[in-house]
Amino acid sequence: MPIARILAIGDELVLGRTVDSNSTALARMLGDLGFTVDQVRQVGDGEAGICAALRALAADAAVVVCTGGLGPTADDRTRHALAAAMGVSLEESATAWRVIRKAWARLRPGVTVPDINRQQALVPVGGSWLANDRGTAPGLLAHIGSCQVACLPGVPHEMLAMAQRLARRLPRLVPGLIRPVVAEVWFSGIGESTAQERIADLFSERDPQVGITVSEAGHITLRVVGRGPVVRRRARELAARLTGHVLPAPGLAASLVAELARRGQIMTAAESCTCGQVAAQLGAVPGASAVWQAGIIAYHDAVKRRLLGVPAALLRRHGAVSCEVVAAMAAGARSLARADVAVATSGIAGPGGGTATKPVGLVWLACATRSGVVTREVRIRGERERIQRRAAAAALQLVWDVLHGRVAANNAAH
Amino acid sequence: MPIARILAIGDELVLGRTVDSNSTALARMLGDLGFTVDQVRQVGDGEAGICAALRALAADAAVVVCTGGLGPTADDRTRHALAAAMGVSLEESATAWRVIRKAWARLRPGVTVPDINRQQALVPVGGSWLANDRGTAPGLLAHIGSCQVACLPGVPHEMLAMAQRLARRLPRLVPGLIRPVVAEVWFSGIGESTAQERIADLFSERDPQVGITVSEAGHITLRVVGRGPVVRRRARELAARLTGHVLPAPGLAASLVAELARRGQIMTAAESCTCGQVAAQLGAVPGASAVWQAGIIAYHDAVKRRLLGVPAALLRRHGAVSCEVVAAMAAGARSLARADVAVATSGIAGPGGGTATKPVGLVWLACATRSGVVTREVRIRGERERIQRRAAAAALQLVWDVLHGRVAANNAAH
Repeated sequence: MPIARILAIGDELVLGRTVDSNSTALARMLGDLGFTVDQVRQVGDGEAGICAALRALAADAAVVVCTGGLGPTADDRTRHALAAAMGVSLEESATAWRVIRKAWARLRPGVTVPDINRQQALVPVGGSWLANDRGTAPGLLAHIGSCQVACLPGVPHEMLAMAQRLARRLPRLVPGLIRPVVAEVWFSGIGESTAQERIADLFSERDPQVGITVSEAGHITLRVVGRGPVVRRRARELAARLTGHVLPAPGLAASLVAELARRGQIMTAAESCTCGQVAAQLGAVPGASAVWQAGIIAYHDAVKRRLLGVPAALLRRHGAVSCEVVAAMAAGARSLARADVAVATSGIAGPGGGTATKPVGLVWLACATRSGVVTREVRIRGERERIQRRAAAAALQLVWDVLHGRVAANNAAH
Repeated sequence: MPIARILAIGDELVLGRTVDSNSTALARMLGDLGFTVDQVRQVGDGEAGICAALRALAADAAVVVCTGGLGPTADDRTRHALAAAMGVSLEESATAWRVIRKAWARLRPGVTVPDINRQQALVPVGGSWLANDRGTAPGLLAHIGSCQVACLPGVPHEMLAMAQRLARRLPRLVPGLIRPVVAEVWFSGIGESTAQERIADLFSERDPQVGITVSEAGHITLRVVGRGPVVRRRARELAARLTGHVLPAPGLAASLVAELARRGQIMTAAESCTCGQVAAQLGAVPGASAVWQAGIIAYHDAVKRRLLGVPAALLRRHGAVSCEVVAAMAAGARSLARADVAVATSGIAGPGGGTATKPVGLVWLACATRSGVVTREVRIRGERERIQRRAAAAALQLVWDVLHGRVAANNAAH
């Protein structure tokens, strides 16, 4: 498979101020086109460093895609570094300059293009410019030896739109590119290591390549990439080994929304320690309004009593973080929101508030339905942010399990 | 300044499945210690590629920090690649093996350590292992020539905890390291370009270096890094130019929690289109419980009526996404939650539901206090996820403005 590499340019990357999500998107796009991406690099804005990186990456690759450093200021040296790596000079493209002025007229009506922006019309001799319909900086397409080099802007939404057009063009520029077949299997409710044991013999590095990714939202994705019918067959084999844990959509929230919509049921949540994260995950799914009408964040005991009807005696006797209180919260929320299914969370997210018997990371969950209330205790290691995120994922998992009749208590560490 | 470089290892990175936030955190940590980070690289799991990258990066650097590839499986080749790059063999460390077994006993009580995990006790001759108190994979510390090489696991929370310990150790290992002074100024309520115009002459690339970062949570951070009193002086100058927009804490949510705690006030939120994101942002702040007791997610009109007391006639006449309804939601939430301050959101997050007069991205916000209700209309471009996130940030900004008596309507696009 032809080799592709990515070079992300910008001081903000090597200073650790910005996470480089552009390279992740480009790596995925190039992989889906049939390239092997064997290296990604980030360098600062200096011209010499960019030029050296371009030369090194282009030496034995079919394609190098760069992002960043195409702006109008003195710091933006990508086009100069590309010309230097090619051993040619830069020339102003009259067409590019016309396009830049048109983009300004569209995006910033009434503002004269500063003279400094004229450098954005410079193109290395032998190269060409790439249209940018979201911003004012055109991209560049050239080659260093036999390696195609595309330079795109660093602004993510401009970069992504241009990368999609580049993806349609690359198969014509790089001979021998065969687009792979991609299939995904999503699952949850068992850990990565347990899953790995069940499917160990189905992993392979190529033909097809099988990869596993753990999402922060609580599910795990198996991604099968290869050629021909072997891809779908392997995906079916993987799913068969994970029976009872496979999700119909990418993620617990999307799967729950689809499943509840299919059943014509309404869900609600009463959140204490997760403080809106269960609601936010469900609400992020397009079409959530079909199954999701209301949620309560009951952080304070008085609110648990007053809005959710949790008896004061229960709070006094067991404390807010308890099996009894979280069950009452779920039942109260179900009735208050007139929902079919209610989930409740109550735990100690930290950093303060932990005790010897109720340490930071202890979370009680409950799910109330017409059939009654199921509770589950989980213990989550880490910081406040991780505890809240994992507790929200565990709450969605509990609902999923209840909907599918799998309600055994699960006290494993998360 | 001594050069440091970062190498992140994992097929998931070059396949574009995982965004490499580890390298961002490491780059920042190394910069704060006084290193110049001039390059970050991601490579796949192959031993030859890791070895070549280690050699190239170590050639003229003082430190290389790696993450990933320290697991127990056949794919995990970082330690082998490090030994190969050093030109030495691997030897089992009896102490490391004991520590691994102890970690298993603590983290997975009752589970026997699989024999395959024994490779995690292998250390290159001349190197040493680094304790991991969050997981079972120890790290490694060695040197290639005069370059120190530290290998940390790829799991973010394990990596971060170990990186903090490494940061305390590096100044002893690398002579000539001078920790810079770092000062930050956080602000919100004006856009990046407006801010840039006000402070253009205070930007500099070094002595001190001034950087700007736009957060997804709605605020902007100016970061001043350098030596001596010039850093704090520049930070004061920057803050003076942004008077009225500077935040006391990093982020709107943290600033609001601090400000409300200072005033002894309680806040609540009634969220429609943001679906829990306002609550989640406030709840993520440690100590939020002092000012935050309850929140309502009122996605459905019936819930807006029944729980928040929004008159049915108002919903019929103006629709849920309107100035009138969002004001009634805020007033209703303030009374329901017995709070001093209530914020409400109602908008069209898309992808469906937009009309010519109420397009996707239109969001109405309201803030109710003892003095009355203030509303604000915002229009947000982009996808559902961006609209919800920016609407939550705009809601927090409205509360901040109301608390500080800045309540002029703001109809600008976001």
